[in-house]
Amino acid sequence: MAVRVGVLGATGAVGQRLIQLLDPHPKFELAALTASDSSAGKTYRQAAKWRVDSPIPADVAEMTVQATEPDAIPNDIDLLFSSLPSSVGAAVEPGFCEAGYVVSSNSSNGRMDDDVPLVIPEINAEHLDLLEVQRDERGWDGALIKNPNCSTITFVPTLAALTEFGLEKVHVSTLQAVSGAGYDGVSSMEIIDNAIPYIGSEEDKLETESRKLLGEFDGASLTHNDVAVSASCNRIPTIDGHLENVWVETEAELDAAAAAEAMEAFPSLDLHSSPDPLIHVFDEPDRPQPRMDRTVGGGMAIAAGGMQETPFGLQYNCLAHNTIRGAAGASVLNGELLAENGYL
Amino acid sequence: MAVRVGVLGATGAVGQRLIQLLDPHPKFELAALTASDSSAGKTYRQAAKWRVDSPIPADVAEMTVQATEPDAIPNDIDLLFSSLPSSVGAAVEPGFCEAGYVVSSNSSNGRMDDDVPLVIPEINAEHLDLLEVQRDERGWDGALIKNPNCSTITFVPTLAALTEFGLEKVHVSTLQAVSGAGYDGVSSMEIIDNAIPYIGSEEDKLETESRKLLGEFDGASLTHNDVAVSASCNRIPTIDGHLENVWVETEAELDAAAAAEAMEAFPSLDLHSSPDPLIHVFDEPDRPQPRMDRTVGGGMAIAAGGMQETPFGLQYNCLAHNTIRGAAGASVLNGELLAENGYL
Amino acid sequence: MAVRVGVLGATGAVGQRLIQLLDPHPKFELAALTASDSSAGKTYRQAAKWRVDSPIPADVAEMTVQATEPDAIPNDIDLLFSSLPSSVGAAVEPGFCEAGYVVSSNSSNGRMDDDVPLVIPEINAEHLDLLEVQRDERGWDGALIKNPNCSTITFVPTLAALTEFGLEKVHVSTLQAVSGAGYDGVSSMEIIDNAIPYIGSEEDKLETESRKLLGEFDGASLTHNDVAVSASCNRIPTIDGHLENVWVETEAELDAAAAAEAMEAFPSLDLHSSPDPLIHVFDEPDRPQPRMDRTVGGGMAIAAGGMQETPFGLQYNCLAHNTIRGAAGASVLNGELLAENGYL
Amino acid sequence: MAVRVGVLGATGAVGQRLIQLLDPHPKFELAALTASDSSAGKTYRQAAKWRVDSPIPADVAEMTVQATEPDAIPNDIDLLFSSLPSSVGAAVEPGFCEAGYVVSSNSSNGRMDDDVPLVIPEINAEHLDLLEVQRDERGWDGALIKNPNCSTITFVPTLAALTEFGLEKVHVSTLQAVSGAGYDGVSSMEIIDNAIPYIGSEEDKLETESRKLLGEFDGASLTHNDVAVSASCNRIPTIDGHLENVWVETEAELDAAAAAEAMEAFPSLDLHSSPDPLIHVFDEPDRPQPRMDRTVGGGMAIAAGGMQETPFGLQYNCLAHNTIRGAAGASVLNGELLAENGYL
Repeated sequence: MAVRVGVLGATGAVGQRLIQLLDPHPKFELAALTASDSSAGKTYRQAAKWRVDSPIPADVAEMTVQATEPDAIPNDIDLLFSSLPSSVGAAVEPGFCEAGYVVSSNSSNGRMDDDVPLVIPEINAEHLDLLEVQRDERGWDGALIKNPNCSTITFVPTLAALTEFGLEKVHVSTLQAVSGAGYDGVSSMEIIDNAIPYIGSEEDKLETESRKLLGEFDGASLTHNDVAVSASCNRIPTIDGHLENVWVETEAELDAAAAAEAMEAFPSLDLHSSPDPLIHVFDEPDRPQPRMDRTVGGGMAIAAGGMQETPFGLQYNCLAHNTIRGAAGASVLNGELLAENGYL
Repeated sequence: MAVRVGVLGATGAVGQRLIQLLDPHPKFELAALTASDSSAGKTYRQAAKWRVDSPIPADVAEMTVQATEPDAIPNDIDLLFSSLPSSVGAAVEPGFCEAGYVVSSNSSNGRMDDDVPLVIPEINAEHLDLLEVQRDERGWDGALIKNPNCSTITFVPTLAALTEFGLEKVHVSTLQAVSGAGYDGVSSMEIIDNAIPYIGSEEDKLETESRKLLGEFDGASLTHNDVAVSASCNRIPTIDGHLENVWVETEAELDAAAAAEAMEAFPSLDLHSSPDPLIHVFDEPDRPQPRMDRTVGGGMAIAAGGMQETPFGLQYNCLAHNTIRGAAGASVLNGELLAENGYL
Repeated sequence: MAVRVGVLGATGAVGQRLIQLLDPHPKFELAALTASDSSAGKTYRQAAKWRVDSPIPADVAEMTVQATEPDAIPNDIDLLFSSLPSSVGAAVEPGFCEAGYVVSSNSSNGRMDDDVPLVIPEINAEHLDLLEVQRDERGWDGALIKNPNCSTITFVPTLAALTEFGLEKVHVSTLQAVSGAGYDGVSSMEIIDNAIPYIGSEEDKLETESRKLLGEFDGASLTHNDVAVSASCNRIPTIDGHLENVWVETEAELDAAAAAEAMEAFPSLDLHSSPDPLIHVFDEPDRPQPRMDRTVGGGMAIAAGGMQETPFGLQYNCLAHNTIRGAAGASVLNGELLAENGYL
Repeated sequence: MAVRVGVLGATGAVGQRLIQLLDPHPKFELAALTASDSSAGKTYRQAAKWRVDSPIPADVAEMTVQATEPDAIPNDIDLLFSSLPSSVGAAVEPGFCEAGYVVSSNSSNGRMDDDVPLVIPEINAEHLDLLEVQRDERGWDGALIKNPNCSTITFVPTLAALTEFGLEKVHVSTLQAVSGAGYDGVSSMEIIDNAIPYIGSEEDKLETESRKLLGEFDGASLTHNDVAVSASCNRIPTIDGHLENVWVETEAELDAAAAAEAMEAFPSLDLHSSPDPLIHVFDEPDRPQPRMDRTVGGGMAIAAGGMQETPFGLQYNCLAHNTIRGAAGASVLNGELLAENGYL
């Protein structure tokens, strides 16, 4: 009865996290792994430079890695998780969908396409039905669903908890971990005793993805939320966990206590990977902190704290584990939502 | 002809930087060092756990440390630099001023007092004459001048360069180095692979000191600037150099090029420690960075970059060396201003 | 049927790890917590600055902290774990033993005393019976057992696995994590982008404790092993996990394969906290690494690798989690050994 | 009268340090820069991702980068510094020498060749005359001289200072900075909160290069020293500065004071880049430390400390700046020696 799943791009940093999460998963059974042509034919142990801090699962280690092509993987796979580089994702994901596969993708390509649902299940599960539009338009048997960028996932749940107050303006400054750039993304000479106030195209992702996630789907098309977001992104010397400073201005008055209460009360979902509570609110003003709090809720919760009123609305901080909630876990959770809603 | 100077609180992190800057200074001659009673009577080498990355100057090493009391230091000292803990500063600085000493202090006590000039020479040298008011009111022969907090000094020069556009609102997020908290201020277990989104009372300093610095002195009293500032402060694992993300909203239209031009054109002063240019503007979007750029202008310049227009005004980043321009060098420069203006 | 246990010095870094390990322990029930007088009377949540990366256990958080005195804790406690500073340990541990308590202590005081068993259960469980000698000599109803220093625990199991080859000389260079010095032991300004080639009295601990651990107990007295050990200790910027480079010269010929085999085959014990295998041997030459491998065996295993023959005997590397296997877990395991052997 | 010099491989990490050192050099005039074909024709500013913490020299920034071929550079160049990757060095350095250029190379290729002098001027300047043998054998008008590996340079001067005691055995454990692996050599995900107990082929370099450096040249051939060296190499999270723990066993008795005295008394040379003293000996047992002491002697001195007697001979620690004394500065100093000895 288990859903048979595969991972496209299984050897990279997010691919490794996917395997760490899928191996013990109660409903998903890992049945296919793909990577670049140079890895095809090797065992996973040979192909992957395993970097996750738990041992490589013994059975996965001996699986044979396939090329990233629809013909290379078994027909009876119900669901594919994709953590391909975005250029590769753009080139090959549509082919898998056309061949009938349902793909839950973490890759950034196509996220802003009108007929591609960009989903955080606890926030906008109803956008999933955009897949009907997608299948109509593209003539696919399969389907393509995306999760947002790691830095977007970190702050959007806290905004969603405040929508009742009428979101108007958001300033967000990020302090992002090096794992967000992939295994070789940031050299040690760049970041030890340093910070980099720029991450290419990251600011645009926070600004546009957040509006799509908080948008309204009327069954036919999606209207983006009109909250104005301005982001400034920084890389700092942390391994995992993106920390964000947020200022939010709202139509209705919003004080610190009301914001904390709204976040704590924001509901999680009855899906295996959705933590309860979704948003963990700290009382201590110096929390959340990346190393201390990135694993709250098994790495799937959002940590928040430091709410205070300012002349420009409410200021607070939030944090999420960027390769779990912000990437691999986000794709897995979308897979669970697809299964729950009969899309497999 | 040299000005004979002393350092109050000479053994701490800022005290050591003061000595590093004063020892080769062409106009100041180091003639007295004080510390806590437990250090009094020791040589400086014995009393200080020297941590600056250049050797302790040989002559200073053998100076005898005195107690931090007016009676303990020579009468012929013209100028005292103070890097005392603020509670100690509040208790003893007035006594030195009453005893006739002119004190250029980095300690946070008294910075916001109406009759205490809070000065960055290139920004508001004209506030120095508030000392006349101070002497009148307090009956001192000496005088007390303050430099701002390190995180305030980092962004205020960039704002000063933009005043012609009419400053309205400023959001600032800081990524601050551990040296800002003093030698034992941040434990390694707190900060390795981590960030802390809270620095006690730091946000208030950015918000209030900036308005005083940018205020108008009419010869009798000081009117604070009415720009609204909201700060969010973070500690990150860097040794030196505070990096800040700034959004500024102005009355007049302000584009990225105009902002860069205004900053580059902002004048420095003809004082020994004032760098030219005062603000170094980078073209590369990923600069300034703490480790790469904190020593620009000998650690006395402000580095800026990343100007971009947003829906909420201009966004940019700035950086300064927090223990040089942000502390010891700021006090030394104020000392040079005092000498230049006949206050010694 | 659970053993009721207490923790002396419960608020420090090792004390927190003890609580993290004892709270879910199947055989031990946490019934008392002590700390310094200033903490006595507070709840544990109030008294401890909790720094472990899992939440403070809810029931422990509300326990009342007692003063560290025999009269302050319940009579029905069967076993006390001590993580007191060594000067405090020296002053108060004997009083608890005299009052009838069995104390499993991580503090360094008394470790080298002739009648105090210094024990790593998998290595020298038979030394436990030195407690008979201790009780005879000291007239105690209670008992005092010690575990070694964290850096000693890291390499001694690998030496024990090689004793059959006849240990002669050992050179060991350590790369130690900051948590080994306690929460405030190493300031961030000391260690970011740095290493410190000196840890006070640490080298002596490796050199002398290892000989006692590998010694022979004949039922009446203990003869230390005569292997000659020379250590050089360094602090590096890692949070947890001590890495050590070892050269060992043996009477019998010892090649890399034989060493790896002997380590892998070294038996663990049938105690709750003893991992199987005790020594995890890596094939990859670049392992073990602190961040990747410190949690092998739940933080209770020793990781080893890099065996190679040199002109001076065998060279290899080993690693252990310094606050789990090297401190809190070591004390807990000694407690399990005491329970198993009827000493409670 | 200045010597016109060029840099082969000018865009890499060591190439940038070469430029930083050569630009202000009183005797060398930088006249040619080469890099890979993809950089040829660009200005140096365009071709190099400048990473040194002082600005790129203005005149160098506008120089045109050439291909790394003898025909591509001016004929009037007297001396070439090479910081090419070793595989490229092996392929192209001989061609330059054949074309008449004298090459002072930091690349590892050919270092152990019988007719290639491997030189640290203060240690074995007399090996330079091996160039006569080289020219005879190879028929070159030019010449090829090498400096050793960065980790070798760090400890060999301290051994050289102790040769009078009769070197027998050396154990050395290294704690090496990430810059030693080049700009992209160590990813941040590998090294933050971590250490890596393996650096490919590094141990062999310390063991063999040290014996060649300390060898005897009789005018015709070189006899390597027969001291036995065993090295264990580690990468740690420091930017610059290799720290090494050394145990040395000698024929004659050697105590800590005599070792310190011999090191302090070891002579430097009358060359521009040779610091005086060559070896800076610290009294404090916790020095040298990478961040504090890597710039002693302008980054060209060796720092040493922590001398203590052990059962296995003397133990001490030493440190050098790996990209200055250990690479770029080493090549420049060899260039000065070549000029001084009439080889240009």
